[in-house]
Amino acid sequence: LNTSRQNPELGPVSIRQLRRIFGRKNLLTDPADCWPYGYDNSRRQALPQAVVFASDAEQVKALVELCNRDRINLIARGRGTGTTGATVPDRGGIVLSFERMDRILEINPDDRLAVVQPGVTNEALQNAVGEAGFFWPPDPTSAAVCTVGGNLAYNSAGPRAVKYGTPRENTLGLKAVTGAGRAIQTGVRTTKGVVGYDLTRLLIGSEGTLAIITEATLKLTPLPEARRTLQAVYQDMQAAATAVAAVMAQPVIPCALEFIDGAAIDLVRDYAGLDLPAEAGAMLMIEVDGPADGVDALAERIARAAEVEGAIAIHLAADAGEVQRLWKARKALSPALRKVAPKKINEDVAVPVSRMPEFIDRLQELGRRHQITIVNFGHAGNGNIHVNLLVNPDDPEEMRRAEACLDGVFDLVLQLGGTLSGEHGVGLEKRDYVDREITTETLALMRAIKHQFDPNGILNPGKGFPP
Amino acid sequence: LNTSRQNPELGPVSIRQLRRIFGRKNLLTDPADCWPYGYDNSRRQALPQAVVFASDAEQVKALVELCNRDRINLIARGRGTGTTGATVPDRGGIVLSFERMDRILEINPDDRLAVVQPGVTNEALQNAVGEAGFFWPPDPTSAAVCTVGGNLAYNSAGPRAVKYGTPRENTLGLKAVTGAGRAIQTGVRTTKGVVGYDLTRLLIGSEGTLAIITEATLKLTPLPEARRTLQAVYQDMQAAATAVAAVMAQPVIPCALEFIDGAAIDLVRDYAGLDLPAEAGAMLMIEVDGPADGVDALAERIARAAEVEGAIAIHLAADAGEVQRLWKARKALSPALRKVAPKKINEDVAVPVSRMPEFIDRLQELGRRHQITIVNFGHAGNGNIHVNLLVNPDDPEEMRRAEACLDGVFDLVLQLGGTLSGEHGVGLEKRDYVDREITTETLALMRAIKHQFDPNGILNPGKGFPP
Repeated sequence: LNTSRQNPELGPVSIRQLRRIFGRKNLLTDPADCWPYGYDNSRRQALPQAVVFASDAEQVKALVELCNRDRINLIARGRGTGTTGATVPDRGGIVLSFERMDRILEINPDDRLAVVQPGVTNEALQNAVGEAGFFWPPDPTSAAVCTVGGNLAYNSAGPRAVKYGTPRENTLGLKAVTGAGRAIQTGVRTTKGVVGYDLTRLLIGSEGTLAIITEATLKLTPLPEARRTLQAVYQDMQAAATAVAAVMAQPVIPCALEFIDGAAIDLVRDYAGLDLPAEAGAMLMIEVDGPADGVDALAERIARAAEVEGAIAIHLAADAGEVQRLWKARKALSPALRKVAPKKINEDVAVPVSRMPEFIDRLQELGRRHQITIVNFGHAGNGNIHVNLLVNPDDPEEMRRAEACLDGVFDLVLQLGGTLSGEHGVGLEKRDYVDREITTETLALMRAIKHQFDPNGILNPGKGFPP
Repeated sequence: LNTSRQNPELGPVSIRQLRRIFGRKNLLTDPADCWPYGYDNSRRQALPQAVVFASDAEQVKALVELCNRDRINLIARGRGTGTTGATVPDRGGIVLSFERMDRILEINPDDRLAVVQPGVTNEALQNAVGEAGFFWPPDPTSAAVCTVGGNLAYNSAGPRAVKYGTPRENTLGLKAVTGAGRAIQTGVRTTKGVVGYDLTRLLIGSEGTLAIITEATLKLTPLPEARRTLQAVYQDMQAAATAVAAVMAQPVIPCALEFIDGAAIDLVRDYAGLDLPAEAGAMLMIEVDGPADGVDALAERIARAAEVEGAIAIHLAADAGEVQRLWKARKALSPALRKVAPKKINEDVAVPVSRMPEFIDRLQELGRRHQITIVNFGHAGNGNIHVNLLVNPDDPEEMRRAEACLDGVFDLVLQLGGTLSGEHGVGLEKRDYVDREITTETLALMRAIKHQFDPNGILNPGKGFPP
């Protein structure tokens, strides 16, 4: 899988061919121009030899054919909001940016679908389908900037996944070009379809290592009429985790079930309007949606389920302003953490919901043992926990302790039946840990599949799997 | 993919090894004993050379190793309720029955999951998880008999799929043995997970051609508190199809949206309590579920959406007895059709919901042109239409016309953006048509993937793909 070596310089012939395919305006080769396409949100960076901007699938196909023939690494890229280095060209090669291939080709309310090019941003899509009364459920925090192509490449989700699922549950079909330069078409335009193997889901989450998606048919969901937001405060994380399990065991599924632990609360306590009691050791933010005339009853149900031992206060947001303040506090967490610990290690593990109390307990134990401050928040309804190790990377001794702690975190996650990544993916960051989760035989099969799509290993080499 | 030839007789050595793996009680070799394991609900039949009953994954692995070494065809089988011949050993070989590997290994309400062996019936699973307040959404008509392993092999759905999805949306992970005899493990125990490629969905719907599933971790959904059933009668199928589109375009998603066309109504008109006006040209059965104190409001919403031009009567079932009578009529359709035309051709195409009116129109046109009576019913919310061609197979001239008609039906489906199978699968029945829907390049990739899982082509050879 990771046999590709560092790419040599692109020769003048290759450059000429790139110019022929993309035109002068859609090709960057000057390193100063290329640098901005060499990083993502992982703080990793590497210089691509060239950056090209596709505007249609034909160009993508011609590019893959060229790269395949000349063994040039090819890294597809949306807007670079990933957190794992998956779009960083660490072995050199050509970065294919989709920012200019961003059209919405069709919005079909009757069939509840939209057909888009991969470069459309999540937000632009939501705005367009919103006018027709629909939304596309995946809602990563970076929705304003990130592209649908990127969402598909990582199977990026967000808070709404607890009710509405991830891209894998919300995509009907794809057009793509494999690493061998073959244009393929997967899936259907209907919500059922069982002809042939499910290549749609195989491509989703494959981080650009199998094929390059050139078009997606997305399943749309009608916008709910109304939404209610609850803030539930608990003595400690154990009580909050118990409440999460209780909420998830009753029939009303919330459309968001976010949690913030005590350490995280301390970080955002000062945000205007959060108004948290001093003894708050954990907080849940719960949203429920439904018909205008029924949503209050649903919210009441959820409030009752969340009322477990150790609950301090459960509060229904009175108006839109209050909802906004609540979410502001939740969204302030990442920047606040960045301020306190600019180079924090941010993991996104998931454990079965019932194991969350134990996980949080043992996390704190690990933090104490390795003298690392750990702050947790995340999508509790999926057991998807963003574990933040607050470290100073200029302190090598602390970094060693953090490494050991992280190692313990991953072992703990797997021991509890969890997964190393709920939604951020593997990329470069976690590839060395993948073989702890996936067995040797299963990994061998994944590599064999990769080889069928991309026999020369040109697509995003070195990502997603142990080297 | 279909390179396996007719299997030779099993030699005494192979028989001895089978006996060693399974024990005398779990091995059939007498043709009289084997025949019942040679057919499904497609009316096709072929004699397997042996039938074995597995009770654990180790036996399955040993069996695959034996078959792989000796190039013996191996056909996994649940209860043989499939309609496409996918479990019929038409090239001979060993049938592996899962009927004795039917344990529910875990029911975990807090994590909303169940772990099962493939031989458990859908109904046994529903009963067991129902006691904990949950259900598993896939609900094929044959739920009382069919196995979860079979549901996974075909991605079998049913009426509830319109709201709750198919097995692909309701399965978290699998254990399986590939055709090469490798035990693999796919997926996670959480509702999010993005480490490695999605092999779970690749196996689901692959009709036993890639690997043999030995264990499944299923995602459970809380049982809704209440349900309401509506019967909506229309002048013609066009009006009913318009109502379907209107229902699907508003935010309350029904948990069943079934339709019956005029010809089908005539067949079941006499069923007690159906009470249909003479001018009824189409009928919808709509179910909605939700919280006890909100479900009536939801049903009202749906009734309003279904009230389109051409609606004759929309009627909310008053009590459980009436609901039962309504469903009885719907369920009586298949047997009634079988009585009228014992060898009817039953297809299960799907078209985008918005194209249903046109599809039904042009179907009738095709029927007239080829002088074939066509009766339609199915899962309208998914555009999944069971097209029944009433034919007499003893009339070769009529069968020729039916073939030509079917050909036209498939072309029409694809022209309208549909798929040749919504839920029944391909098996032997539709394999010759697959290349009309899936492009050559995409098919080549599927075959290449198959080869990685099953290099010697021993698993269910000849199924699912054009020979």
